[in-house]
This record gives sequence, structure tokens and C-alpha cells, in this order.
Amino acid sequence: MLHMKLYIINTIGKRFAVIGIENNAKNRKNYRHLLFTTTNISQYISGIILHEETFNQKDDAGKSFVDIIREAGILPGIKLDKGLRQVDGSSEYITSGLDDLKERAKYFKKGGCQFAKWRCVYVISKVTPSRKIMKENAKILAQYAVSTQQAGLVPIIEPEVLCDGEHDLERTEKVTEQVLAEVYKSLHDYNVYLEGTLLKPNMVVTGLKSKEKVGHDKIANKTLTALLRTVPAAVPGIVFLSGGQLESDATRNLNEINKITINKPWKLSFSYGRALQTSALKAWMRHGPKEAQAIFRQRAKLNALAAEGNYIDDFE
Amino acid sequence: MLHMKLYIINTIGKRFAVIGIENNAKNRKNYRHLLFTTTNISQYISGIILHEETFNQKDDAGKSFVDIIREAGILPGIKLDKGLRQVDGSSEYITSGLDDLKERAKYFKKGGCQFAKWRCVYVISKVTPSRKIMKENAKILAQYAVSTQQAGLVPIIEPEVLCDGEHDLERTEKVTEQVLAEVYKSLHDYNVYLEGTLLKPNMVVTGLKSKEKVGHDKIANKTLTALLRTVPAAVPGIVFLSGGQLESDATRNLNEINKITINKPWKLSFSYGRALQTSALKAWMRHGPKEAQAIFRQRAKLNALAAEGNYIDDFE
Amino acid sequence: MLHMKLYIINTIGKRFAVIGIENNAKNRKNYRHLLFTTTNISQYISGIILHEETFNQKDDAGKSFVDIIREAGILPGIKLDKGLRQVDGSSEYITSGLDDLKERAKYFKKGGCQFAKWRCVYVISKVTPSRKIMKENAKILAQYAVSTQQAGLVPIIEPEVLCDGEHDLERTEKVTEQVLAEVYKSLHDYNVYLEGTLLKPNMVVTGLKSKEKVGHDKIANKTLTALLRTVPAAVPGIVFLSGGQLESDATRNLNEINKITINKPWKLSFSYGRALQTSALKAWMRHGPKEAQAIFRQRAKLNALAAEGNYIDDFE
Amino acid sequence: MLHMKLYIINTIGKRFAVIGIENNAKNRKNYRHLLFTTTNISQYISGIILHEETFNQKDDAGKSFVDIIREAGILPGIKLDKGLRQVDGSSEYITSGLDDLKERAKYFKKGGCQFAKWRCVYVISKVTPSRKIMKENAKILAQYAVSTQQAGLVPIIEPEVLCDGEHDLERTEKVTEQVLAEVYKSLHDYNVYLEGTLLKPNMVVTGLKSKEKVGHDKIANKTLTALLRTVPAAVPGIVFLSGGQLESDATRNLNEINKITINKPWKLSFSYGRALQTSALKAWMRHGPKEAQAIFRQRAKLNALAAEGNYIDDFE
Repeated sequence: MLHMKLYIINTIGKRFAVIGIENNAKNRKNYRHLLFTTTNISQYISGIILHEETFNQKDDAGKSFVDIIREAGILPGIKLDKGLRQVDGSSEYITSGLDDLKERAKYFKKGGCQFAKWRCVYVISKVTPSRKIMKENAKILAQYAVSTQQAGLVPIIEPEVLCDGEHDLERTEKVTEQVLAEVYKSLHDYNVYLEGTLLKPNMVVTGLKSKEKVGHDKIANKTLTALLRTVPAAVPGIVFLSGGQLESDATRNLNEINKITINKPWKLSFSYGRALQTSALKAWMRHGPKEAQAIFRQRAKLNALAAEGNYIDDFE
Repeated sequence: MLHMKLYIINTIGKRFAVIGIENNAKNRKNYRHLLFTTTNISQYISGIILHEETFNQKDDAGKSFVDIIREAGILPGIKLDKGLRQVDGSSEYITSGLDDLKERAKYFKKGGCQFAKWRCVYVISKVTPSRKIMKENAKILAQYAVSTQQAGLVPIIEPEVLCDGEHDLERTEKVTEQVLAEVYKSLHDYNVYLEGTLLKPNMVVTGLKSKEKVGHDKIANKTLTALLRTVPAAVPGIVFLSGGQLESDATRNLNEINKITINKPWKLSFSYGRALQTSALKAWMRHGPKEAQAIFRQRAKLNALAAEGNYIDDFE
Repeated sequence: MLHMKLYIINTIGKRFAVIGIENNAKNRKNYRHLLFTTTNISQYISGIILHEETFNQKDDAGKSFVDIIREAGILPGIKLDKGLRQVDGSSEYITSGLDDLKERAKYFKKGGCQFAKWRCVYVISKVTPSRKIMKENAKILAQYAVSTQQAGLVPIIEPEVLCDGEHDLERTEKVTEQVLAEVYKSLHDYNVYLEGTLLKPNMVVTGLKSKEKVGHDKIANKTLTALLRTVPAAVPGIVFLSGGQLESDATRNLNEINKITINKPWKLSFSYGRALQTSALKAWMRHGPKEAQAIFRQRAKLNALAAEGNYIDDFE
Repeated sequence: MLHMKLYIINTIGKRFAVIGIENNAKNRKNYRHLLFTTTNISQYISGIILHEETFNQKDDAGKSFVDIIREAGILPGIKLDKGLRQVDGSSEYITSGLDDLKERAKYFKKGGCQFAKWRCVYVISKVTPSRKIMKENAKILAQYAVSTQQAGLVPIIEPEVLCDGEHDLERTEKVTEQVLAEVYKSLHDYNVYLEGTLLKPNMVVTGLKSKEKVGHDKIANKTLTALLRTVPAAVPGIVFLSGGQLESDATRNLNEINKITINKPWKLSFSYGRALQTSALKAWMRHGPKEAQAIFRQRAKLNALAAEGNYIDDFE
């Protein structure tokens, strides 16, 4: 059983750059080792999504990261997509990786992974996302999900509506709904076993350049409305991505969503990247690994509380 | 607030024929009057779907049936579709009635109706329902829903997978899922306000000519699975049609569905026709109106109990 | 064999108003009678599309217009659509008339009609025509074509991109291509027998409010390009509608299209309304029926020449 | 200008096996060198589609095959797809190769290729090809065509309906039509410049295991009908694949198609593999390279005649 407390480490280079750490294999290995070996972290986090690099890395004693994670009581997963390619003549993207997906899925399953993730992105502008791209990415996500399930992995479906741009809350809500409606129609068309999938959506927030002021309660409300309109109750769990949000915002929004008392048919949790590591990274550079682990554990704990609607601001 | 206890009177001629009553306007009027004036019936039934004929009928004192229903504390609704037309060169059907729908929706709203219904049917055979018909009917249901909502009526969406044929339970389940997936995708595409709709689906049963023996619990399980995979939680209520089931089977299946303890995000109730009236009709012919009303009330009560999962066989 | 010289009389009221003739049944009858009995008109016009009213009209001697037309050596056809209805919440239209189409098609066939027409329109604005409307109208045209062919009538498919608006030539070209691509895909999906259909498209012209100056040769070029990219060679003939063009422009553009020497796999002709009658109508009011008929015949002749690429300006 | 006389060398291993030649790089190189250096072959063949291996091969003097081909007055092209992958849980295939297509297209363009080809296949059985696969492959072909055109290569679109199976002529015709209709709709949706593409379709023949006897004239008729119903006149050329046909049948069918006097808006030619090489291969093994070249040239010549409808059986 996947406990639905996931986080990802995927754009580590960008994060290193912010705090001035050189992005090389050794630093990446040390940083990841630090995170994976944080005491009691499995109380708050149930799964970790690995890059291919991390999947192949070992600690100094020669123990593979996959084994370290499993011994910590956490499920290892694998990022199966190969990133984005721009669609000719547009500002939109589709996701690569289908060509040899089946072989890769089997390989990572054999190597101990239990779930996978695949990300598609949607750019909001006056004319995008186009219906064509929404249909195309939905189909790609469905093909990924089928092949992944056939290899024995649980697919995490990640259709991310990007928060770059000036769009207001209403536009994000509409686009998120359209994107999710296409995704679930496509999963049906491809006979994906919905009960064996997880969704990793964006929250419904305004564009980063928008001047609209929106409270956490409103974000929570719109996010939940979009999900209730599109995600079948057969889906067991939804793990939000943090997508550009500050650590505290991501935690607060998750908390507000879980506080809403309307019948929510899925387990709602988090799969944060930056919003789980920003403070830990800074602490690592300034104060060393012990302090970084303490801060990382604290942030994971706050989000675990928020996933139950039990986070209180004073915790911070 | 619609209490989700609906029944329909739509194929009255067929029912009269079975018990040897002549199908004329007078008999239809008397029979309907009998049903509508059953004492305390509003405890078990919250809405009645009228044919255009019934909408225009009056009792002997000149009071319109619409007023009689409203004074009984029941919501009057209207059947807005104009029936089926066969698709050229196939055994499938699409539903007529869009040509002047807007005008008719406004007319019935003005006349006191508060909701509407529209039925599409799907024939199961080796090669049907075709994807084309599923898409076409889904589009028609969405256009109906939009126009109905704009006229101020609550649309009941009725996509009925017919039980004629030899198909087994698994096939019914698959077809029902596909049909509902198309319907909700189309409702999204047409921006239907899901929170203001009701669904009237078939239960997942075997074809009438199938020899497969299936228990009520299995029917309930498959029916719920199909709904959980396709119907968004934003939909407030689902009212099952009885579609060829015997009175007691329709009640038992509804009861089993409501007894399942899994999180069901919608209110699950009934909108039965034949399964609410067979015994009452017989009693009317044999023993007169008082007995007919007593039996009608009892059947409505049993279904109301089943809609809460509280029906017990001994009640019969 | 349909000779592909068609004209329509459909918005007669608008035309009467311009010249101050009262729009009543008698005037409409007289005017139509005048046109139908123009000497030798069958040399230039092979078919006439009738409204239901005209189909039922007779001359003073009691002979039906259908018979008058047939005796003049011209094929009578019937407008089968029931006009436009606005799509809720948008500025777009779909076409009504499917509800009882089969019965009507059989009726007019029995009454002597040999072909039919059905018009869908597309509004160009910044956000329209939407893909949804293009798909919807394409489906409607296909359903019309199937039912019409089954009744023994040749369907004329009329998807008209309206020329209202400020759009430039390039936009009209793009939209016309998209519209026609959807239409022919849909005709395929519904197994329409393409060899037994005619297309009645708009020419690719600029919006009426556009300030772009475009020569007849460029219009001809763009129009032909759009057709070559979308209309299968199996379609025997294309008859252009005049859609807001002046008489002389409509003739000149048709002539330019036919003068282009590239391989054109279809017969290219005209099905003009206003562009065939404006001068005749004026003459009728000012000088009487004889003069009107002479002018009508002359205009028909010029267009017949243009349909062969043999029109010369000096003819005017 | 591409003269539309293309042949492919793609499944060389299978061909070597038939005549007992070992399938190694040296033999492949020698065989290809033989074909490319056949005297005067450019009179009959205007382009050659290379595998990546061939693209990189050189003759013993170190001259690249690409240069040899160009100096012979023939256009070099490249096979850009990466072959088929089976769709999970079905007997159908989609084609791989999109993941890094753009980079590869630019690479081969830079290396001297002027056109490309990409093959999708469709399996005929009672339930296939499915609409889903037809849509999916059509989309893939469109994405290939766009990326290829952007790299400066002319895309050859190859949707091959396989001739394995027991299906009769009518079924092949229907499937071929559906496949092509989907392909051209998709090319439109992706804004492919149709005037800069070539189509490489199958002919409409019966399944290899069918017992139906069909003459060349009927095959020609059905093939042309399917094309006229689906392929826009804007497409400049169609080059048939031989797909399982014997040499003489492939030539005769091509000849019959070109003899039909109906207006064919495209240039109709051939892009044969096996049907151009079977006899030449045998001659190579038995009599040596000179004889093989003579026979290869003769077969190319007969097909070039057939592409003009001027082939006569006595030529053989």
C-alpha cells in the first residue's frame, strides 16, 4: 500500500545553482544520501521518485540508493518520461519517452522500483493550451499508464498546468478542468485500471505574473472543484505538486484543501519537490548535513499534517 | 432541493396492455390521477416526470395535474426528448428533439416544471454500441443539458444501456463504463454545470436472454464500479432506472448498492417506472383505486428504504 | 445527370425589401413564376432549389411550380434544413432539421424533387469558428447527406464560411480549409457515397469590413488551393455560392477560378442567389417582367460562360 | 523536382535468406553497391530510400553511398521511423521514432538526404484495425511530416494496410479508405504542407490467404476509387508500395491503374522493394553482378513504363 506521501527530486541542478553549490555527480549523491538517510523520514514520506542517475547511484559503502530507500521503509519510484519537446511552430510541449518505454519500465521494475511517474505540461497563454495538445498529452499519459501497469508499476499521472504567465484564477481553473477531463477520457479509452493509478495535478493558482490576490481558502476551493468535476472516485489518491509555490504556501494550500468538509472520494496528499527542500538545502550549505536533515524532516512533517488538514501556522 | 426520489410514467400503453386496460386518454388520466393523489406519497417520492400529455391534463374539477403534483409536495418534471430514430443502415438509435428544444424547455419551465429528462439508448450486440453512436448520443445529451439549464430546469441525463440480448455481466459493465465516460466528457466539452445535473443510468445487469446467474450483490458491485470510474463526484445525485427488472429485483439491487460501504460521493436513489407500478396496476384492475394506491405507496416506501440501504426482504 | 448550373431563391424577403416590393405570397409567386418561365433559361441553369413554399405553389392555371420547372428542362431540388439556431452562450450557429428529416426527404422525393440542399454557417471572429462547432456542423451535414441519399435525393453540402467581419484573405483561406477538412472527414465516417454528392462552398474572400484589396485572380487562387487541399476528387462537382458578392464580382471570380490551368478534378460551377437576381429584380419593378427575364437570362448566361472560364468583361 | 520513381531497400535480410546469402554488412554493402551503380538506372528510378546503415556505408574506394547515388542522378532519402511496437493487449502496432525525430531529421538533411519516409502498418482482422489505432498512427504520421518538413526534407507518408489475412477485396477497400481518411484529416490538423508531401499507400488487394480471385483491372479500379475518395488533389504524387505482390503482379497492377482514363489529379508511380529485386537477387547469386544489374534495370524499366500505363505483357 502506497501511503501517499511522496516527494520528488528532479530539478536538482536549478536548486543547487540558487545556493551556489556545484552541480556535479558527487554533490548530487551526497545531497540525496543526506535526504534518504534522514532519521524517521518514513513517518512523513512513503515514496521517493528517482531519476535514472539516482537509481544507479550507491553510497560510499557500495549500497545502492534503491536499497537504502527500501530499508528506510520508503517505496522507490522512477521518473519514466524523457522530458519535453517543443511542438513545431508553437509554444507548447509534448513529452518524449514512448519509443522504448516498455523495456525501460520492465528494467526499473526488476531493479526494485514499485511505481513510476510521467509529466506532461500545459502552457497557459491567450491561445494555449490548444485542444490538440491537450488531446495529445492525454493520449501519451494513457499509453504510459498502460505500459507501466503491464510492467507491474503503479503509474503516477502528472499533467501540470504551468503557473508561468499572467492568467487569473478562473482561467487556471478552466484549463485545469479541461486538461483533467481529457486525461481521464483518454485513460478510459486505453483501458487503464484507474484503481491502480495516482494523479499528480497542479493546484489551481494564479499565474506568477498575475496581480490578483487570492487567499489559500479560495485556492483550495477552486482546486477541489476542478478535481470533483473531473477525477473519478475510482482513483485512490491525488498527490499535489508544488509547482512554483513557496514552501509555506504549498503547505497551507494543501491544508486548506484537506480542511474542506465536502465528501472527497480520494486521499489527498503531496508530492513536493522544491517546496520540501528549499530550506533544507540552504541549511546544508550553511550549517551542514545534520541541520539540513532536521529541517527537511520538519518540513515533511508539516506537510504530512497538512495532508490531514491538521497543519497550524504556529508550527512554522 | 430535489430529494432524489423520482419515478417516471412513460410507457403506460405497454403496461395497460399487459393487464387488459384500454389505452385511451380517459384511462390514462384516471390512472395518473390515482397515483398523484396517493396519500403521503411525497414521503417516498420527490419528483414526477410528466409526458407532454400529462402536463396538459386536468382532473374532473379542472385542476391541472401539474398543480395537483405541486400541492402534493412533489416536483413536476418533463420528458423533453422526442423519442428515438434509427440510424440509417444500423440497429442503433439516436434521440430526436433538439430542433426546437430551447422553446419547449422555456415553455415547460413557465408551466411549472422544475426539471427535465432526456433518454438515449444503447443496444448491445457483437458490434454495438459503436463508438460513433456513443459519441453522437453523448453530444446530444450535452446539448440537451445546456439548453435545459439555460431555461432554468435541472436536466436528468438518461443514457440507458438496454438489457435486451444475450450479453454477460462483464460486457454490460464495459459498455456502461464506455457510455458514461463519453457522456461526461461531452458534458465537460459543452460546459454543462455538473453540480446542477442528475444522472439516470441503468444498473449493470446481464442481457435478458443471458443464461448467466448473477446475485444482487454482484450486480451492485459492478454497477458501483462502473459509476466510480466515470461519474465525477461533482454530480449530486444518481437515480437508477429499473429497465426491465422485476419490482423486487429493482428494489433489492438498489438496496445492495446502497449497502456497500465504500465512499460513494453521490446520493443514490431510484427513478423507476414499471418496477414501481406493476403490482399497483394489477390491483387497480382487480380491486379498484384504493387498493392500487395502498400497493403503490408500499412499493414506493420499500424503494425509499432501499435508497438508504435499509430494505429487508421480509418487508415484501 | 445534373449539369451543375444551379441557383437558389432563399432569402427573397431581403431582396424584395431592397427594391420596395411587398413580401407576400402573391408577389413571391409572381416573381418566381417569372424566373421559372424565362425562355431558354435551361441553357444556363440546370437545377433550381425550392423552398417548401415554392414546392407547394402553383401558377394561375393550377400547374405546380415543380411541373413548370421540370417541363422547362430543369431539375427541381429542395432546401431540407430548417435554418439556424444559435449555440448557447456563443455567437455560433448549428443547423436544425434532423428531427424529422427522413420523412421529409421521402416526401419531397415523391413530389418530384431530385436533389436537396442543407446549409451550415461558420462565423469568423477572433475565437470562432470553434473546433466544436466545425465538428458538430460536419456531423450534421453527414447525417443529412446519408438520409438524403437513402431517400433517393442527391445532397448538396453547403458549409458557408460567412463573409461578415474584418478578417483578411489568409484567415478566410485557413478557416475554409479547416471547415472543409472536417466536413469530408465526417462524410467518410458516415459512409456517404461521395460520388453522389455536390459541394456548395463559399469562395475565399476577405471579410466585408476588411480594408484589404484583393484581385479576382488572388481570390481564385486561394479558393482553388483550399479546395484542392480538402475536397476529394471523387466529388463530381462544386457549385459556388455567391455569399455577399456583387453580381459582377461573383461572375468574375468564378471565371478566374475556371481559367486556372492546374488539374481540377471536379466540375466547377455556380449556385448563385442574389448574384443572379439583383439586376433582374430591379428591372422587374421598373420595367416589368419581360425586361426582368431578359436581364436574368443574360446574367445566367454570363455565369455559364464563367463556369467554363470563357467570360469576358466586355460582355457586361 | 522529385520524379516519382522510388524504390526501397528495407528488409534485405529476409530477401537474402530466401536465396541463401549470408546477411552480413559486407554482403549488404556489395549488393547495394551493385544496385546503385547499375548503368542508366536513373532513367527509371529517381530516388532511393536508405537505411541508417546504408547512409553510413562507403564503397571500397571510400566514397559514401550517398555521394554515389547523387552522382548517379538519383535523390537519396532516409527511413526515419524506428520500426513497430505492439500495442499492449492487442495485435496492432504503432510506429516508434518520435522521441528524437527532429535531431535525426536535421542530421540526415545535413548529410545530403532530400526526402524521408515513415511507415505505419494496419492489421486487418475481424476487429482491427481499430479506430483508436487508425487515429493514433495518423497523428504519428502527421507529427513526422511536420518535423520532417521543418528540417527541409520531403516526407513520404506510408500507411500500409497489410495483406496478411483472409479478407476479401471489399474489406481491403473499406479499410484503406478509412486509414487514408484519418491520415489526411490528421495532416490537416497539424498544418502539414500537403503540396510538399508524397503518399506511399498499399494497393487494394485481397488478403494473402483469401481464396477470392481478382483481376488486375478490378484491383486497379478499387485502388483508384479509394484514393479518389480520400487523397486531396493538392498531393503531388502517389508511389505505391508492392507489399507482398509478385514482381509481375505489382507491375501489371500499376499499369492498370495508370491506364484508367478518369481524371487522376496526382502523378501515380511506384516505390517497390521486393517487387523490384527478387529476380535481380537470384541472378546475382547464380550469374554474378553484371547479370543482376541487367535484370534490375529491366524490372525498373518495366515499372517505369507501367507508371505511364504503357507496359505490355510481352515485355516480360
